Amino acid sequence: MYKLVLIRHGESTWNLENRFTGWTDVELTDTGIAQARAAGALLKAEGYEFDVAYTSVLKRAIHTLNHCLDAMDRDWLPVVKDWRLNERHYGGLQGLNKADMAKQYGDAQVLVWRRSYDTPPPALEAADPRGQRQDVRYAKLPADAVPLTECLKDTVARVIPAWDDALAPAIKSGQRVLIAAHGNSIRALIKFLDNIGDDDIVGVNIPNGIPLVYELDADLKPIKRYYLGDAEAAAKAAAAVANQGKA
Amino acid sequence: MYKLVLIRHGESTWNLENRFTGWTDVELTDTGIAQARAAGALLKAEGYEFDVAYTSVLKRAIHTLNHCLDAMDRDWLPVVKDWRLNERHYGGLQGLNKADMAKQYGDAQVLVWRRSYDTPPPALEAADPRGQRQDVRYAKLPADAVPLTECLKDTVARVIPAWDDALAPAIKSGQRVLIAAHGNSIRALIKFLDNIGDDDIVGVNIPNGIPLVYELDADLKPIKRYYLGDAEAAAKAAAAVANQGKA
Repeated sequence: MYKLVLIRHGESTWNLENRFTGWTDVELTDTGIAQARAAGALLKAEGYEFDVAYTSVLKRAIHTLNHCLDAMDRDWLPVVKDWRLNERHYGGLQGLNKADMAKQYGDAQVLVWRRSYDTPPPALEAADPRGQRQDVRYAKLPADAVPLTECLKDTVARVIPAWDDALAPAIKSGQRVLIAAHGNSIRALIKFLDNIGDDDIVGVNIPNGIPLVYELDADLKPIKRYYLGDAEAAAKAAAAVANQGKA
Repeated sequence: MYKLVLIRHGESTWNLENRFTGWTDVELTDTGIAQARAAGALLKAEGYEFDVAYTSVLKRAIHTLNHCLDAMDRDWLPVVKDWRLNERHYGGLQGLNKADMAKQYGDAQVLVWRRSYDTPPPALEAADPRGQRQDVRYAKLPADAVPLTECLKDTVARVIPAWDDALAPAIKSGQRVLIAAHGNSIRALIKFLDNIGDDDIVGVNIPNGIPLVYELDADLKPIKRYYLGDAEAAAKAAAAVANQGKA
Protein backbone atom coordinates (compact mmCIF):
# COMPACT_ATOMS: atom_id res chain seq x y z
CA MET A 1 0.00 0.00 0.00
CA TYR A 2 1.18 3.48 -0.87
CA LYS A 3 0.46 6.92 0.57
CA LEU A 4 0.32 10.06 -1.51
CA VAL A 5 -0.11 13.55 -0.04
CA LEU A 6 -1.53 16.50 -1.99
CA ILE A 7 -1.56 20.10 -0.78
CA ARG A 8 -3.22 23.03 -2.46
CA HIS A 9 -1.07 26.17 -2.05
CA GLY A 10 -1.75 28.51 0.86
CA GLU A 11 -3.86 31.62 0.43
CA SER A 12 -2.52 33.84 -2.36
CA THR A 13 -2.90 37.58 -2.80
CA TRP A 14 -5.53 36.96 -5.47
CA ASN A 15 -7.38 34.39 -3.36
CA LEU A 16 -7.63 37.19 -0.81
CA GLU A 17 -8.82 39.65 -3.46
CA ASN A 18 -11.19 36.98 -4.86
CA ARG A 19 -9.73 37.28 -8.36
CA PHE A 20 -9.45 34.58 -11.02
CA THR A 21 -5.75 33.68 -11.02
CA GLY A 22 -5.05 30.76 -13.34
CA TRP A 23 -1.49 30.93 -14.64
CA THR A 24 -0.87 34.43 -13.25
CA ASP A 25 2.12 34.08 -10.93
CA VAL A 26 0.95 35.70 -7.69
CA GLU A 27 2.51 35.61 -4.20
CA LEU A 28 1.31 33.92 -1.03
CA THR A 29 -0.16 36.18 1.65
CA ASP A 30 1.16 35.98 5.22
CA THR A 31 -1.86 33.77 5.94
CA GLY A 32 -0.84 31.54 3.04
CA ILE A 33 2.70 31.23 4.39
CA ALA A 34 1.31 30.36 7.83
CA GLN A 35 -0.97 27.73 6.25
CA ALA A 36 1.98 26.17 4.42
CA ARG A 37 4.08 26.05 7.58
CA ALA A 38 1.16 24.62 9.57
CA ALA A 39 0.77 21.90 6.93
CA GLY A 40 4.44 21.01 7.31
CA ALA A 41 4.22 21.02 11.10
CA LEU A 42 1.17 18.73 10.92
CA LEU A 43 2.87 16.31 8.52
CA LYS A 44 5.91 16.23 10.80
CA ALA A 45 3.81 15.71 13.94
CA GLU A 46 1.99 12.83 12.22
CA GLY A 47 5.29 11.21 11.28
CA TYR A 48 5.04 11.63 7.50
CA GLU A 49 8.25 11.22 5.52
CA PHE A 50 8.77 11.79 1.81
CA ASP A 51 11.40 10.90 -0.76
CA VAL A 52 10.48 13.42 -3.43
CA ALA A 53 8.16 16.40 -3.85
CA TYR A 54 6.47 17.72 -6.98
CA THR A 55 5.06 21.15 -7.62
CA SER A 56 4.06 23.45 -10.46
CA VAL A 57 6.09 26.30 -11.95
CA LEU A 58 3.95 28.90 -10.14
CA LYS A 59 5.41 30.54 -7.06
CA ARG A 60 2.36 30.19 -4.83
CA ALA A 61 2.76 26.40 -5.05
CA ILE A 62 6.58 26.45 -4.99
CA HIS A 63 6.65 28.70 -1.91
CA THR A 64 3.99 26.57 -0.22
CA LEU A 65 6.19 23.54 -0.78
CA ASN A 66 9.33 25.36 0.41
CA HIS A 67 7.66 26.51 3.64
CA CYS A 68 6.08 23.10 4.19
CA LEU A 69 9.41 21.29 3.72
CA ASP A 70 11.16 23.82 5.95
CA ALA A 71 8.60 23.30 8.74
CA MET A 72 9.29 19.54 8.38
CA ASP A 73 13.07 20.18 8.44
CA ARG A 74 13.16 18.48 5.05
CA ASP A 75 14.46 21.38 2.92
CA TRP A 76 16.92 18.95 1.36
CA LEU A 77 14.34 16.71 -0.32
CA PRO A 78 14.49 16.65 -4.12
CA VAL A 79 11.82 18.82 -5.74
CA VAL A 80 10.54 18.52 -9.30
CA LYS A 81 8.76 21.53 -10.80
CA ASP A 82 6.38 20.49 -13.57
CA TRP A 83 4.28 23.00 -15.55
CA ARG A 84 1.65 20.28 -16.03
CA LEU A 85 0.72 20.69 -12.35
CA ASN A 86 -0.12 24.38 -12.90
CA GLU A 87 -3.54 25.74 -12.01
CA ARG A 88 -6.25 25.61 -14.69
CA HIS A 89 -5.72 28.50 -17.11
CA TYR A 90 -8.57 30.94 -16.58
CA GLY A 91 -8.35 32.62 -19.99
CA GLY A 92 -10.02 36.00 -20.29
CA LEU A 93 -11.08 35.88 -16.64
CA GLN A 94 -7.50 36.04 -15.32
CA GLY A 95 -7.19 39.06 -13.07
CA LEU A 96 -10.95 39.74 -12.80
CA ASN A 97 -12.90 39.67 -9.53
CA LYS A 98 -15.13 36.61 -9.07
CA ALA A 99 -17.93 38.46 -7.28
CA ASP A 100 -17.83 41.34 -9.81
CA MET A 101 -18.18 38.81 -12.61
CA ALA A 102 -21.10 37.22 -10.76
CA LYS A 103 -22.82 40.60 -10.48
CA GLN A 104 -22.22 41.30 -14.15
CA TYR A 105 -22.97 37.87 -15.65
CA GLY A 106 -24.92 36.16 -12.85
CA ASP A 107 -23.97 33.43 -10.40
CA ALA A 108 -24.95 30.70 -12.86
CA GLN A 109 -22.57 31.90 -15.59
CA VAL A 110 -19.69 32.23 -13.13
CA LEU A 111 -20.40 28.73 -11.81
CA VAL A 112 -20.23 27.45 -15.39
CA TRP A 113 -16.86 29.20 -15.90
CA ARG A 114 -15.55 28.00 -12.55
CA ARG A 115 -16.86 24.49 -12.47
CA SER A 116 -18.23 23.32 -15.82
CA TYR A 117 -16.23 20.30 -16.86
CA ASP A 118 -16.03 21.10 -20.54
CA THR A 119 -16.94 24.76 -21.10
CA PRO A 120 -13.86 26.99 -20.92
CA PRO A 121 -14.03 30.72 -20.13
CA PRO A 122 -13.48 33.08 -23.09
CA ALA A 123 -9.94 32.66 -24.47
CA LEU A 124 -7.24 35.28 -24.19
CA GLU A 125 -5.62 36.63 -27.33
CA ALA A 126 -2.18 35.03 -27.80
CA ALA A 127 -0.49 38.42 -27.36
CA ASP A 128 -2.53 39.46 -24.29
CA PRO A 129 -0.12 40.50 -21.51
CA ARG A 130 -2.38 38.62 -19.07
CA GLY A 131 -1.47 35.44 -20.93
CA GLN A 132 1.67 33.28 -20.81
CA ARG A 133 2.67 32.79 -24.45
CA GLN A 134 5.51 35.30 -23.94
CA ASP A 135 6.59 33.97 -20.55
CA VAL A 136 10.22 32.73 -20.63
CA ARG A 137 9.43 29.80 -18.31
CA TYR A 138 7.39 28.17 -21.08
CA ALA A 139 9.75 29.09 -23.91
CA LYS A 140 10.88 25.49 -24.44
CA LEU A 141 7.31 24.19 -24.84
CA PRO A 142 5.52 24.12 -28.18
CA ALA A 143 3.53 27.39 -28.30
CA ASP A 144 0.20 25.57 -28.42
CA ALA A 145 1.00 23.72 -25.18
CA VAL A 146 0.59 27.08 -23.41
CA PRO A 147 -3.18 27.47 -23.10
CA LEU A 148 -5.17 30.63 -23.79
CA THR A 149 -8.00 29.24 -21.65
CA GLU A 150 -8.92 25.88 -20.16
CA CYS A 151 -11.93 24.01 -18.86
CA LEU A 152 -11.25 21.31 -16.27
CA LYS A 153 -11.29 18.70 -19.05
CA ASP A 154 -8.33 20.48 -20.63
CA THR A 155 -6.54 20.57 -17.28
CA VAL A 156 -7.15 16.84 -16.83
CA ALA A 157 -5.67 16.28 -20.29
CA ARG A 158 -2.31 17.73 -19.22
CA VAL A 159 -2.28 16.65 -15.55
CA ILE A 160 -2.85 12.94 -16.25
CA PRO A 161 0.22 12.61 -18.50
CA ALA A 162 2.24 14.01 -15.55
CA TRP A 163 0.64 11.33 -13.39
CA ASP A 164 1.38 8.62 -15.95
CA ASP A 165 4.96 9.48 -16.76
CA ALA A 166 6.26 11.00 -13.50
CA LEU A 167 4.06 10.64 -10.41
CA ALA A 168 2.74 7.09 -10.78
CA PRO A 169 6.17 5.59 -11.66
CA ALA A 170 7.72 7.40 -8.66
CA ILE A 171 5.06 6.04 -6.31
CA LYS A 172 5.28 2.52 -7.74
CA SER A 173 9.06 2.57 -7.32
CA GLY A 174 8.44 3.02 -3.60
CA GLN A 175 9.08 6.75 -3.34
CA ARG A 176 6.86 8.59 -0.89
CA VAL A 177 5.49 11.51 -2.88
CA LEU A 178 4.29 14.95 -1.76
CA ILE A 179 2.57 17.21 -4.31
CA ALA A 180 2.04 20.94 -3.76
CA ALA A 181 -0.28 22.19 -6.48
CA HIS A 182 -3.50 24.08 -7.19
CA GLY A 183 -7.25 23.77 -6.71
CA ASN A 184 -7.93 22.55 -10.22
CA SER A 185 -4.81 20.50 -10.89
CA ILE A 186 -5.63 18.66 -7.65
CA ARG A 187 -9.29 18.31 -8.70
CA ALA A 188 -8.05 16.83 -11.97
CA LEU A 189 -6.03 14.23 -10.06
CA ILE A 190 -8.94 13.47 -7.70
CA LYS A 191 -11.32 13.05 -10.63
CA PHE A 192 -8.93 10.60 -12.24
CA LEU A 193 -7.95 8.66 -9.11
CA ASP A 194 -11.49 8.36 -7.71
CA ASN A 195 -13.08 8.04 -11.12
CA ILE A 196 -15.53 10.88 -10.42
CA GLY A 197 -18.05 11.67 -13.14
CA ASP A 198 -17.93 14.85 -15.23
CA ASP A 199 -21.06 16.17 -13.48
CA ASP A 200 -20.03 15.23 -9.95
CA ILE A 201 -16.58 16.83 -9.91
CA VAL A 202 -18.27 20.27 -9.68
CA GLY A 203 -19.02 19.52 -6.02
CA VAL A 204 -15.38 18.85 -5.09
CA ASN A 205 -13.61 21.89 -3.63
CA ILE A 206 -10.07 21.95 -2.28
CA PRO A 207 -9.18 24.10 0.74
CA ASN A 208 -5.87 25.97 0.87
CA GLY A 209 -2.93 24.43 2.69
CA ILE A 210 -4.49 21.31 4.21
CA PRO A 211 -2.71 18.00 3.46
CA LEU A 212 -4.97 15.57 1.59
CA VAL A 213 -3.87 11.97 2.05
CA TYR A 214 -4.55 9.16 -0.41
CA GLU A 215 -3.98 5.57 0.56
CA LEU A 216 -3.46 3.61 -2.66
CA ASP A 217 -3.34 -0.10 -3.38
CA ALA A 218 -0.65 -1.85 -5.42
CA ASP A 219 -2.37 -0.73 -8.66
CA LEU A 220 -2.60 2.84 -7.32
CA LYS A 221 -6.37 2.54 -6.87
CA PRO A 222 -7.57 4.61 -3.89
CA ILE A 223 -8.40 2.76 -0.69
CA LYS A 224 -9.30 5.97 1.09
CA ARG A 225 -8.77 9.71 1.02
CA TYR A 226 -8.88 12.12 3.96
CA TYR A 227 -7.66 15.52 5.10
CA LEU A 228 -5.06 15.52 7.85
CA GLY A 229 -5.92 17.35 11.03
CA ASP A 230 -9.26 18.93 11.87
CA ALA A 231 -11.83 17.38 9.47
CA GLU A 232 -14.49 19.95 10.31
CA ALA A 233 -12.14 22.86 9.60
CA ALA A 234 -11.19 21.26 6.26
CA ALA A 235 -14.87 20.86 5.29
CA LYS A 236 -15.61 24.47 6.24
CA ALA A 237 -12.62 25.71 4.23
CA ALA A 238 -13.75 23.66 1.20
CA ALA A 239 -17.28 25.11 1.48
CA ALA A 240 -15.82 28.63 1.54
CA VAL A 241 -14.00 27.86 -1.74
CA ALA A 242 -17.32 26.74 -3.26
CA ASN A 243 -18.90 30.10 -2.34
CA GLN A 244 -16.20 32.32 -3.84
CA GLY A 245 -17.97 32.77 -7.16
CA LYS A 246 -21.21 34.16 -5.78
CA ALA A 247 -22.29 37.78 -6.06
CA MET B 1 32.14 30.78 -24.24
CA TYR B 2 30.21 29.84 -21.12
CA LYS B 3 29.35 31.72 -17.95
CA LEU B 4 29.04 30.04 -14.56
CA VAL B 5 27.90 31.85 -11.41
CA LEU B 6 28.78 30.70 -7.89
CA ILE B 7 27.30 32.14 -4.70
CA ARG B 8 28.33 31.32 -1.17
CA HIS B 9 25.26 31.26 1.10
CA GLY B 10 24.30 34.42 3.00
CA GLU B 11 25.32 34.94 6.61
CA SER B 12 24.20 32.04 8.81
CA THR B 13 23.46 32.05 12.53
CA TRP B 14 26.79 30.32 13.14
CA ASN B 15 28.68 32.70 10.87
CA LEU B 16 27.30 35.43 13.13
CA GLU B 17 28.32 33.50 16.26
CA ASN B 18 31.72 32.73 14.65
CA ARG B 19 31.30 28.99 15.14
CA PHE B 20 32.65 26.17 12.97
CA THR B 21 29.60 24.90 11.10
CA GLY B 22 30.57 22.25 8.55
CA TRP B 23 27.66 19.89 7.94
CA THR B 24 25.58 21.28 10.82
CA ASP B 25 22.33 22.48 9.24
CA VAL B 26 21.96 26.04 10.53
CA GLU B 27 19.60 28.81 9.39
CA LEU B 28 20.33 32.06 7.58
CA THR B 29 20.19 35.25 9.64
CA ASP B 30 18.04 38.18 8.47
CA THR B 31 21.28 39.66 7.09
CA GLY B 32 21.88 36.40 5.24
CA ILE B 33 18.42 36.53 3.70
CA ALA B 34 18.99 40.15 2.66
CA GLN B 35 22.34 39.18 1.10
CA ALA B 36 20.69 36.37 -0.87
CA ARG B 37 17.93 38.68 -2.13
CA ALA B 38 20.48 41.37 -3.01
CA ALA B 39 22.46 38.79 -5.00
CA GLY B 40 19.31 37.90 -6.93
CA ALA B 41 18.44 41.56 -7.53
CA LEU B 42 21.98 42.18 -8.79
CA LEU B 43 21.90 39.18 -11.14
CA LYS B 44 18.54 40.35 -12.47
CA ALA B 45 19.72 43.94 -12.92
CA GLU B 46 22.78 42.68 -14.83
CA GLY B 47 20.58 40.60 -17.11
CA TYR B 48 21.74 37.16 -16.00
CA GLU B 49 19.52 34.22 -16.94
CA PHE B 50 19.91 30.59 -15.90
CA ASP B 51 18.55 27.25 -17.02
CA VAL B 52 19.31 25.23 -13.91
CA ALA B 53 20.58 25.80 -10.38
CA TYR B 54 22.58 23.51 -8.11
CA THR B 55 22.91 23.63 -4.38
CA SER B 56 23.87 21.47 -1.41
CA VAL B 57 21.53 19.63 0.96
CA LEU B 58 22.12 22.23 3.70
CA LYS B 59 19.40 24.79 4.28
CA ARG B 60 21.65 27.85 4.43
CA ALA B 61 22.58 27.21 0.78
CA ILE B 62 19.08 26.05 -0.25
CA HIS B 63 17.43 29.11 1.31
CA THR B 64 20.04 31.39 -0.25
CA LEU B 65 19.20 29.92 -3.63
CA ASN B 66 15.43 30.16 -3.01
CA HIS B 67 15.66 33.84 -2.02
CA CYS B 68 18.03 34.59 -4.88
CA LEU B 69 15.73 32.95 -7.45
CA ASP B 70 12.71 34.68 -5.93
CA ALA B 71 14.41 38.10 -6.19
CA MET B 72 15.10 37.24 -9.87
CA ASP B 73 11.47 36.13 -10.35
CA ARG B 74 12.87 32.76 -11.38
CA ASP B 75 11.37 30.56 -8.64
CA TRP B 76 10.36 28.11 -11.35
CA LEU B 77 13.90 27.18 -12.44
CA PRO B 78 14.85 23.54 -11.87
CA VAL B 79 17.03 23.05 -8.80
CA VAL B 80 19.28 20.08 -8.09
CA LYS B 81 20.34 19.47 -4.49
CA ASP B 82 23.61 17.53 -4.31
CA TRP B 83 25.24 16.56 -1.01
CA ARG B 84 28.63 16.72 -2.72
CA LEU B 85 28.32 20.52 -2.75
CA ASN B 86 28.04 20.58 1.06
CA GLU B 87 30.44 22.62 3.15
CA ARG B 88 33.67 20.96 4.28
CA HIS B 89 32.95 18.73 7.26
CA TYR B 90 34.60 20.33 10.28
CA GLY B 91 34.81 17.17 12.39
CA GLY B 92 35.31 17.72 16.11
CA LEU B 93 35.30 21.50 15.64
CA GLN B 94 31.64 21.59 14.57
CA GLY B 95 29.76 23.86 16.94
CA LEU B 96 32.85 25.40 18.58
CA ASN B 97 33.71 29.09 18.47
CA LYS B 98 36.58 30.00 16.14
CA ALA B 99 38.01 32.74 18.36
CA ASP B 100 37.72 30.55 21.50
CA MET B 101 39.64 27.83 19.70
CA ALA B 102 42.28 30.38 18.69
CA LYS B 103 42.65 31.48 22.34
CA GLN B 104 42.92 27.86 23.46
CA TYR B 105 45.14 26.43 20.70
CA GLY B 106 46.65 29.57 19.15
CA ASP B 107 45.96 31.35 15.86
CA ALA B 108 48.44 29.13 14.02
CA GLN B 109 46.68 25.88 14.94
CA VAL B 110 43.28 27.29 14.02
CA LEU B 111 44.66 28.50 10.69
CA VAL B 112 45.91 24.95 10.06
CA TRP B 113 42.46 23.53 10.85
CA ARG B 114 40.72 26.17 8.77
CA ARG B 115 43.02 26.38 5.82
CA SER B 116 45.57 23.56 5.68
CA TYR B 117 45.03 21.70 2.45
CA ASP B 118 45.62 18.23 3.78
CA THR B 119 45.43 18.29 7.60
CA PRO B 120 41.87 17.64 8.80
CA PRO B 121 40.61 18.74 12.22
CA PRO B 122 40.17 15.95 14.82
CA ALA B 123 37.51 13.47 13.65
CA LEU B 124 34.13 13.07 15.34
CA GLU B 125 33.12 9.69 16.71
CA ALA B 126 30.65 8.02 14.32
CA ALA B 127 27.91 8.15 16.96
CA ASP B 128 28.55 11.79 17.97
CA PRO B 129 25.26 13.72 17.78
CA ARG B 130 27.22 16.61 16.23
CA GLY B 131 27.95 14.30 13.31
CA GLN B 132 25.78 13.24 10.36
CA ARG B 133 26.05 9.45 10.25
CA GLN B 134 22.52 9.19 11.73
CA ASP B 135 21.03 11.96 9.57
CA VAL B 136 18.18 10.61 7.39
CA ARG B 137 19.16 12.80 4.45
CA TYR B 138 22.34 10.74 3.97
CA ALA B 139 20.70 7.37 4.66
CA LYS B 140 20.99 6.24 1.04
CA LEU B 141 24.74 6.90 0.90
CA PRO B 142 27.33 4.32 1.93
CA ALA B 143 28.11 5.12 5.59
CA ASP B 144 31.73 5.92 4.84
CA ALA B 145 30.69 8.56 2.29
CA VAL B 146 29.48 10.63 5.25
CA PRO B 147 32.68 12.17 6.63
CA LEU B 148 33.65 12.43 10.30
CA THR B 149 36.05 15.24 9.41
CA GLU B 150 37.55 16.68 6.24
CA CYS B 151 40.50 18.71 5.10
CA LEU B 152 40.04 20.74 1.90
CA LYS B 153 41.70 17.93 -0.06
CA ASP B 154 38.88 15.61 1.06
CA THR B 155 36.30 18.20 0.06
CA VAL B 156 37.93 18.54 -3.38
CA ALA B 157 37.76 14.74 -3.71
CA ARG B 158 33.94 14.80 -3.48
CA VAL B 159 33.22 18.16 -5.17
CA ILE B 160 35.13 17.40 -8.36
CA PRO B 161 33.10 14.24 -9.16
CA ALA B 162 30.00 16.48 -8.91
CA TRP B 163 31.69 18.82 -11.38
CA ASP B 164 32.62 15.97 -13.69
CA ASP B 165 29.33 14.10 -13.74
CA ALA B 166 26.77 16.88 -13.24
CA LEU B 167 27.98 20.48 -13.51
CA ALA B 168 30.42 20.28 -16.43
CA PRO B 169 28.06 18.23 -18.65
CA ALA B 170 25.23 20.69 -17.90
CA ILE B 171 27.41 23.67 -18.86
CA LYS B 172 28.74 21.97 -21.99
CA SER B 173 25.19 21.14 -23.07
CA GLY B 174 24.56 24.90 -23.14
CA GLN B 175 22.71 25.22 -19.84
CA ARG B 176 23.43 28.39 -17.91
CA VAL B 177 24.30 27.20 -14.42
CA LEU B 178 23.96 28.92 -11.04
CA ILE B 179 25.50 27.25 -7.97
CA ALA B 180 24.63 28.22 -4.39
CA ALA B 181 27.08 26.50 -2.08
CA HIS B 182 29.60 27.03 0.73
CA GLY B 183 32.95 28.66 1.42
CA ASN B 184 34.95 25.46 1.06
CA SER B 185 32.97 23.66 -1.63
CA ILE B 186 33.38 26.85 -3.70
CA ARG B 187 37.09 27.01 -2.81
CA ALA B 188 37.37 23.40 -3.98
CA LEU B 189 35.86 24.36 -7.35
CA ILE B 190 38.06 27.45 -7.65
CA LYS B 191 41.18 25.42 -6.86
CA PHE B 192 40.25 22.94 -9.56
CA LEU B 193 39.11 25.42 -12.22
CA ASP B 194 41.99 27.87 -11.75
CA ASN B 195 44.52 25.13 -11.00
CA ILE B 196 45.62 26.81 -7.75
CA GLY B 197 48.42 25.10 -5.83
CA ASP B 198 47.86 23.37 -2.49
CA ASP B 199 49.76 26.14 -0.68
CA ASP B 200 48.15 29.05 -2.46
CA ILE B 201 44.51 28.11 -1.95
CA VAL B 202 44.87 29.13 1.74
CA GLY B 203 44.76 32.77 0.59
CA VAL B 204 41.42 32.41 -1.22
CA ASN B 205 38.41 33.47 0.89
CA ILE B 206 34.82 33.62 -0.28
CA PRO B 207 32.47 36.35 0.97
CA ASN B 208 28.84 35.54 1.78
CA GLY B 209 26.17 36.18 -0.82
CA ILE B 210 28.17 37.87 -3.60
CA PRO B 211 27.84 36.34 -7.09
CA LEU B 212 31.18 35.12 -8.42
CA VAL B 213 31.21 34.90 -12.20
CA TYR B 214 33.43 32.58 -14.24
CA GLU B 215 33.81 33.01 -17.96
CA LEU B 216 34.88 29.66 -19.38
CA ASP B 217 36.16 28.64 -22.79
CA ALA B 218 34.86 25.72 -24.84
CA ASP B 219 36.95 23.31 -22.73
CA LEU B 220 35.64 24.93 -19.53
CA LYS B 221 39.01 26.54 -18.85
CA PRO B 222 38.59 29.90 -17.06
CA ILE B 223 39.05 33.04 -19.15
CA LYS B 224 38.32 35.27 -16.18
CA ARG B 225 36.67 35.33 -12.77
CA TYR B 226 35.16 38.35 -10.98
CA TYR B 227 32.65 39.29 -8.34
CA LEU B 228 29.50 41.04 -9.54
CA GLY B 229 28.79 44.48 -8.11
CA ASP B 230 31.07 46.47 -5.84
CA ALA B 231 34.57 44.92 -6.17
CA GLU B 232 35.93 46.77 -3.13
CA ALA B 233 33.06 45.57 -0.92
CA ALA B 234 33.67 41.99 -2.11
CA ALA B 235 37.39 42.23 -1.31
CA LYS B 236 36.62 43.65 2.15
CA ALA B 237 34.10 40.89 2.86
CA ALA B 238 36.63 38.23 1.75
CA ALA B 239 39.28 39.75 4.07
CA ALA B 240 36.82 39.60 6.97
CA VAL B 241 36.35 35.88 6.31
CA ALA B 242 40.14 35.41 6.45
CA ASN B 243 40.23 37.07 9.89
CA GLN B 244 37.48 34.96 11.52
CA GLY B 245 39.90 32.44 13.01
CA LYS B 246 41.98 34.94 15.00
CA ALA B 247 41.87 35.29 18.77
